Amino acid sequence: MNTEELVELGQQLRVDSVRAAAEAGSGHPTSSMSAADLMAVLFANHLRYDFERPAHPGNDRFVLSKGHASPLLYAAYKAAGVIDDEELRTFRRLGSRLEGHPTPQRLPWVETATGSLGQGLPVGVGIALAGQRLDRTGYRVWVLCGDSELAEGSVWEAAEHAGYERLDNLVVIVDVNRLGQRGPTRHGHDLDAYARRFRAFDWHTVEIDGHDVDAVDRAYGEALSTRGQPTAIIARTLKGKGVAATEDHEGLHGKPVKDADEAIAELGGPRSVALRVQEPPTARSLHSTGSGELELPHWDKGEQVATRDAFGQALTALGTARADVVALDGEVGDSTRAELFAKEHPERYFECYIAEQQMVATAVGMAARGRVPYATTFAAFLTRAHDFVRMAAISGSGINLVGSHAGVAIGQDGPSQMGLEDLAMMRSVHGSTVLYPCDANQTAKLVAETAALEGIRYLRTSRGAAEVVYGPDEEFPVGGSKVLRSSARDRLTVVAAGVTVAEALAAADALAGEGIPVRVIDLYSVKPVDRDTLRRAAEETGCLVTVEDHHPEGGLGDAVAEAFADGGPVPRLVRLAVRTMPGSAAPDEQLHAAGIDADSIATAGRLLVEQAVVP
Amino acid sequence: MNTEELVELGQQLRVDSVRAAAEAGSGHPTSSMSAADLMAVLFANHLRYDFERPAHPGNDRFVLSKGHASPLLYAAYKAAGVIDDEELRTFRRLGSRLEGHPTPQRLPWVETATGSLGQGLPVGVGIALAGQRLDRTGYRVWVLCGDSELAEGSVWEAAEHAGYERLDNLVVIVDVNRLGQRGPTRHGHDLDAYARRFRAFDWHTVEIDGHDVDAVDRAYGEALSTRGQPTAIIARTLKGKGVAATEDHEGLHGKPVKDADEAIAELGGPRSVALRVQEPPTARSLHSTGSGELELPHWDKGEQVATRDAFGQALTALGTARADVVALDGEVGDSTRAELFAKEHPERYFECYIAEQQMVATAVGMAARGRVPYATTFAAFLTRAHDFVRMAAISGSGINLVGSHAGVAIGQDGPSQMGLEDLAMMRSVHGSTVLYPCDANQTAKLVAETAALEGIRYLRTSRGAAEVVYGPDEEFPVGGSKVLRSSARDRLTVVAAGVTVAEALAAADALAGEGIPVRVIDLYSVKPVDRDTLRRAAEETGCLVTVEDHHPEGGLGDAVAEAFADGGPVPRLVRLAVRTMPGSAAPDEQLHAAGIDADSIATAGRLLVEQAVVP
Repeated sequence: MNTEELVELGQQLRVDSVRAAAEAGSGHPTSSMSAADLMAVLFANHLRYDFERPAHPGNDRFVLSKGHASPLLYAAYKAAGVIDDEELRTFRRLGSRLEGHPTPQRLPWVETATGSLGQGLPVGVGIALAGQRLDRTGYRVWVLCGDSELAEGSVWEAAEHAGYERLDNLVVIVDVNRLGQRGPTRHGHDLDAYARRFRAFDWHTVEIDGHDVDAVDRAYGEALSTRGQPTAIIARTLKGKGVAATEDHEGLHGKPVKDADEAIAELGGPRSVALRVQEPPTARSLHSTGSGELELPHWDKGEQVATRDAFGQALTALGTARADVVALDGEVGDSTRAELFAKEHPERYFECYIAEQQMVATAVGMAARGRVPYATTFAAFLTRAHDFVRMAAISGSGINLVGSHAGVAIGQDGPSQMGLEDLAMMRSVHGSTVLYPCDANQTAKLVAETAALEGIRYLRTSRGAAEVVYGPDEEFPVGGSKVLRSSARDRLTVVAAGVTVAEALAAADALAGEGIPVRVIDLYSVKPVDRDTLRRAAEETGCLVTVEDHHPEGGLGDAVAEAFADGGPVPRLVRLAVRTMPGSAAPDEQLHAAGIDADSIATAGRLLVEQAVVP
Repeated sequence: MNTEELVELGQQLRVDSVRAAAEAGSGHPTSSMSAADLMAVLFANHLRYDFERPAHPGNDRFVLSKGHASPLLYAAYKAAGVIDDEELRTFRRLGSRLEGHPTPQRLPWVETATGSLGQGLPVGVGIALAGQRLDRTGYRVWVLCGDSELAEGSVWEAAEHAGYERLDNLVVIVDVNRLGQRGPTRHGHDLDAYARRFRAFDWHTVEIDGHDVDAVDRAYGEALSTRGQPTAIIARTLKGKGVAATEDHEGLHGKPVKDADEAIAELGGPRSVALRVQEPPTARSLHSTGSGELELPHWDKGEQVATRDAFGQALTALGTARADVVALDGEVGDSTRAELFAKEHPERYFECYIAEQQMVATAVGMAARGRVPYATTFAAFLTRAHDFVRMAAISGSGINLVGSHAGVAIGQDGPSQMGLEDLAMMRSVHGSTVLYPCDANQTAKLVAETAALEGIRYLRTSRGAAEVVYGPDEEFPVGGSKVLRSSARDRLTVVAAGVTVAEALAAADALAGEGIPVRVIDLYSVKPVDRDTLRRAAEETGCLVTVEDHHPEGGLGDAVAEAFADGGPVPRLVRLAVRTMPGSAAPDEQLHAAGIDADSIATAGRLLVEQAVVP
């Protein structure tokens, strides 16, 4: 498009943004108006995208990091002819695809859910990495950010990652409209404040007037011709641009324009500029399929193997079988054992350094590009990326997260390194799967299963060696459990997972010696939970003890309780969990101090069987 | 100390680091050896600290951000004469104060727990802000960071904050030893890569050889004389410095030195250099006490008030009564209503912009300096700071976190803005208190109570207006609940909190009309939970329905279930919670779609009472 047409298109996007929000009675028209010219030039002259084939391997990828400016995105979709005016007017209504913040669950052209600020660029970096190292079909990744969100550290994790990896297929456009939600941003219209930060992280930068469509056009061209560096376009804009009552005015964030009709008239009224987004170049995915045959590692019963070791070996085997499997780690691959994958499949291993938010965002980006990512760090440090995991679930993203060094069982390193909240965090994520294996063969089988699941999959591994209790041919369906001790006379059931399984078995042996037969359930699938087996155990044994290397809230005990929250009869139960603040100590001392070792289980079981109410 | 003495002290710190780790059989001596000279010069010539009075208002504050280098810290404590050699040799043992990563719970000289990398600087910024704006006793804040941890976005959130606030009382020392846990860092010994990033965020920087004690000494002096900017000292060091077998060697992170005796000999053997840390200048805290009389806002029954509004007003009143109360917000003060406090007490309000990690870290820093901080943002966005909240609990930090816009009840903005995992996250934090008020008077009273609690306190507020159901004189003790409907003939109990209380009351009315009397409990204290009232309700009514605007895992339903996890009888129960992925819709449509409105409660209650097992 030429200058005049671009200006017209920008005005149309403003008008439609104002209309959509007015119709909805809520939304962010002023944040849309500032970026309208940036969007018009991008969609009209630079983006290459086939809306009929969102999966086209040559498609550019656009991420609206400032997801609240959704009216602008939908106005652009309308201009591109892929939604009609009727649908535009469903904005923010029940059942509409046009949500307050865009999500790929509802709209096929959206790469990732946004709305939690500072996440669009990190995910864009993930997609750009996939483009650079895996797809290699020449697509570009465009990310439109707000200025306020540059206060998020995640943006600078992403900037560091992109600069270091020389992602010249990545362009970030910063809509510097000077005003955040509650008032002026830190740096106002000081474009250089942003530019020099990006430059320090080894980006190419361009500073422009974001309402000068020719300058915008040139900047995009410069970005595309820049080699060896990502480009940040820092654009000076005005919030609410084009309407005197809103332009550069504070206090209007997230509010429909008051006199919408007047504003629309001031913007020159509705238009019907049709946008023809360029076709992507012919391209073919370079996907190879891998060997296709999964040869999982296996171990003999009685061997001593850490589940993190089994994980690393199984993931490596999975990577050999499937070329779409990629691994990411937060600079602890020697601990998580992701390094085994790195050695075998270096081209599909992504070192994320100590930047867990960027690691999860990269996983989301990889998943958006059809990969099956496994992102690994200590379970404790996955809390760093909680907001990214939450948003990944909203995206419907299929990612695997693996947290090693779970619980007090890690020993001497102390509480900062102990995952004691991870089960609660991962269970509370919508549609998640949470797995916690106790031995090597089980771990390997579960790794294989996770590859075929949807949504967020979490696997919890342990630092120390554990005895292999299952044979290599045993199967462990997600949603299942294993009954490790059972008799018709059982008077108690102990439900354990991971490191507490061995403790439960020892406790069961001790109690059996006292004439109390005990059932032991290995609840390796914490979510979904094996309701039937738990219910049968409750009916047959009358009471349950749960034991977990995790805080008492949100973990195994809650998972078991939930199995009985359907209105049916509920057994008496006691929860053993980590209720104290651990310090440094040896692993066995830690389990004892936390009251989750065999002795503690036996004591609790004895009391429960004797019908005593544990205080 | 002069050059020679400093060199000797550095060697002694190395020797003691090697000894402590060797004795423990674990730990991070090589990470200690790189920073030994930096530490020696700081403690000998620049730090001003009275070890006998850690609370001295003039004390400098030292934060070991690279907390795994704890042997170095403990070696320095030994040199300063505050621990003896016998205690040093308890490093990492059960019951020792000398944990793998230092915590203020055990050692009075530690400002904040570290060990999750990238958190020391953010907390240091919080302390420096307290120094600059509140204490004004002239203390300096010294933070010793590793190079690997500069990959964390939180470091750049902190850098942005410190640069913008011109914190010239803050010095960060970066121990650039080139090697992370699993191998080389991104930037190796490229000091300028780090320096230019800090400069871009408006810091003064100094690049030095971190083993040249004179250069280190001069750099500290330069930092102290720099006005209007924080200073970053970027020091080139060698990991494992001083021992040929470890110096600059990969693969030795987190491992005791193999031949400890040989290494100690190579370092010149044990020494007994005594360190005299400078006394702090005489100083007095400027604490004023406030009016001392808390005049809480109050409302009449039947008024329509959002709990976020009540929170803002109550916090403002609390700030008037108590001068130690400070407020922090993540650039959404107009939404959380923290802006009311900002208007009344601007000197004690800290705008953190959209940087939730830095916000929570600032709160931790303020708490370390004796303040009672309230940090506010959308409940959903507190997930961004999960790792900081977890570490704050390990510190034993007393901070208040307030999450507004809880649940699907926010309406049109959609899932990215809905706090649906926050209760799970906050309950799973060690020693936390979790409160979720349903009306304005209740909110105000709970705000007042939180000020006197210990540990992490979480208050969940709601966006929309709600009817005031309690009179202004009602009391709401933490750990309590309110029975809003009750009769001797109740056949069912509905347990609700926050927005679902009104729904529960409506459902109870409907069921009462059908001849099913229903008890309604307002469980405003989600943790600790009112076990007695729940147990009585279970005994008297036989069955329970819980209803919450939160995912089913880790929230109210789990809290209620936990109340029965003591081995006693358990009632039949059903949980209503948000099990679907919401989109955009009006608040009432959202509650209905999620199955947590009055109709859904009535349906579930009816089924349960009829003894039907809900599928």
